[in-house]
Amino acid sequence: AEIVVLPGDGIGPEVTASAMQVLRAVGQRYGHEFHFTHELIGGAAIDATGEPLPARTLEAAKRADAVLLGAVGGPKWSDPGAKVRPEQGLLAIRKALGLYANLRPVKPHAAALGASPIKPHLLTGVDLVVVRELTGGVYFGQKTRTATSASDLCEYSVEEIERVVRRACTLARSRRGHVTSVDKANVLETSRLWREVTTRVVREEFPDITLEHQLVDSMAMHLLSRPREYDVIVTENMFGDILTDEASMLAGSLGLLPSASLGEGRVGLYEPIHGSAPDIAGRDVANPYATILSAAMLLRHSLGLEPEARCVEKAVDGALAAGVFTADLSPAGRGVSTQAAMVAVL
Amino acid sequence: AEIVVLPGDGIGPEVTASAMQVLRAVGQRYGHEFHFTHELIGGAAIDATGEPLPARTLEAAKRADAVLLGAVGGPKWSDPGAKVRPEQGLLAIRKALGLYANLRPVKPHAAALGASPIKPHLLTGVDLVVVRELTGGVYFGQKTRTATSASDLCEYSVEEIERVVRRACTLARSRRGHVTSVDKANVLETSRLWREVTTRVVREEFPDITLEHQLVDSMAMHLLSRPREYDVIVTENMFGDILTDEASMLAGSLGLLPSASLGEGRVGLYEPIHGSAPDIAGRDVANPYATILSAAMLLRHSLGLEPEARCVEKAVDGALAAGVFTADLSPAGRGVSTQAAMVAVL
Ligand SMILES: CC(C)[C@H](C(=O)O)[C@@H](O)C(=O)O
Ligand SMILES: CC(C)[C@H](C(=O)O)[C@@H](O)C(=O)O
Repeated sequence: AEIVVLPGDGIGPEVTASAMQVLRAVGQRYGHEFHFTHELIGGAAIDATGEPLPARTLEAAKRADAVLLGAVGGPKWSDPGAKVRPEQGLLAIRKALGLYANLRPVKPHAAALGASPIKPHLLTGVDLVVVRELTGGVYFGQKTRTATSASDLCEYSVEEIERVVRRACTLARSRRGHVTSVDKANVLETSRLWREVTTRVVREEFPDITLEHQLVDSMAMHLLSRPREYDVIVTENMFGDILTDEASMLAGSLGLLPSASLGEGRVGLYEPIHGSAPDIAGRDVANPYATILSAAMLLRHSLGLEPEARCVEKAVDGALAAGVFTADLSPAGRGVSTQAAMVAVL
Repeated sequence: AEIVVLPGDGIGPEVTASAMQVLRAVGQRYGHEFHFTHELIGGAAIDATGEPLPARTLEAAKRADAVLLGAVGGPKWSDPGAKVRPEQGLLAIRKALGLYANLRPVKPHAAALGASPIKPHLLTGVDLVVVRELTGGVYFGQKTRTATSASDLCEYSVEEIERVVRRACTLARSRRGHVTSVDKANVLETSRLWREVTTRVVREEFPDITLEHQLVDSMAMHLLSRPREYDVIVTENMFGDILTDEASMLAGSLGLLPSASLGEGRVGLYEPIHGSAPDIAGRDVANPYATILSAAMLLRHSLGLEPEARCVEKAVDGALAAGVFTADLSPAGRGVSTQAAMVAVL
């Protein structure tokens, strides 16, 4: 299988390197040959080529079976007046590959509950997946700027909503059959469309699924007070961005949460939901588990290698159960190196 | 003083009635005469007049010293095809009175920590105020709808940002001098403007204030993992909506959080941040503390009666310390009546 690796910026190179080693190990064990190619994205690509997503990167990604990405961004490229930004590379590759469904599973691990700000008794049994719409909404609408004002347009089409809701419902069928759709239908027109389309798709195509609607403000609350009640949560791009970072606190650290971005095509993109963490970059202290778990999702969703995916997930479980914690997970703030955490997974 | 009371829908009439009794009691104790007039808003106004904000209500509010509001909305008026919605009344009165700064203080009470999903040791010493921009952003931008799509426009002008940032900084001066501005400047044009204007206003007009910028997704996380570090948080309308509901979990219940909506004019609007809770309406079980604490903010910000405001806040503290909990605060889910909780404050 052809895997394009986009390390990106900050801790991106360290965490993708760890995940590649785990992929190589699992490949050896099960007799698969993975072929890795490195390409540029984000700030690293801007520095080298002036563009956050060079054409060469996109072409390589299109030809690949899967893309493994680290993270993009950092203060170096965040000047208010900057013409190109690392984040544009990430948004552009999601859009160009048609990766409209971003799956972000949250399943707190018993050993990591100490790192969560949430009371442990609320977390046992939590097992949810946020399906975030990834190529529409205010992230991609027209932007304007004048001397005295600015604007961003949030747009959704019926088709954009249908396809991500179908994906969420299909996923729910393989789980507990419950979908929670999140919007702000009491204020936004896009949310009213979202609610109508979701209701219709479930009624007509997924009558076996139970559907519940939640306003985004209530959801931000209930995600904390009764996280066990959720199975699959489907929502638009911006709400999904906010709610998944919030949900990471259920798991104890952003450093534990993987994601898969999928479309209709074969190629998927896999990345941790954390950012590039420039403050700790290059110091071998970043948590590699989120990227390793993203590699497990890659095995599952792009390569159809379910036992191999489970094997990686079990190995991470084992490392956590053995108390192999990077600093983000250590109550005292000290922890093992990136390298040591990766080795514990092998 | 002239106070216009807008009970609204659901539990609105019950919680505003409680707050009025507390205001009457504090008036008697300190020798003030408060004059209350009731007007219609939301679903109740739609039922009676066809409009969510009748002209008569707005005129009364404009003539008053302050407005005390319950909550609006409910399933009765939430038909997807509905032409008028209760929420429009609330948005319209905020806009018409120019109430651009919505102050939402969050200060967990020791006695209520049991009701919070957050670990208690993270909550001691938490004392923050979210200043939410209330009359701009995607709530008020143009909305479109076609057979196949919908859109909402998010707009901000320099002036809209300046005035709410000034309000936040002035507030921070009377507190710990720290302002955290929340945006999504790595993606949104309105957020980039927000960040530029905030930076300039603080540098030029509030050099004594320490300013920090946070991306909204990170904020959703840090609000839970290190809530003690925040003093004043200033953000745009939609982000403020989501983050304050999330922050309510620090206090244990949405039923404890008051708010004040202020503009340049004299009249302010005071309301709990919770909604109309139609499921428990009319059963004398709603938590009245948030509305009573909103009345305290009314005494402080619109009437300049600081000792009276403190007296009410102390009385609520006392009731909580004595364990007078409504159902939302009771671990076992049972609790005292709205009436009993109010009486405990008198
Ligand atoms: C870097 C940024 C553009 C990105 C997003 O908001 O989509 C990130 O926060 C994420 O969640 O993947
Ligand atoms: C009812 C709704 C329009 C309102 C808002 O989103 O502003 C409410 O959620 C609030 O926070 O006051």
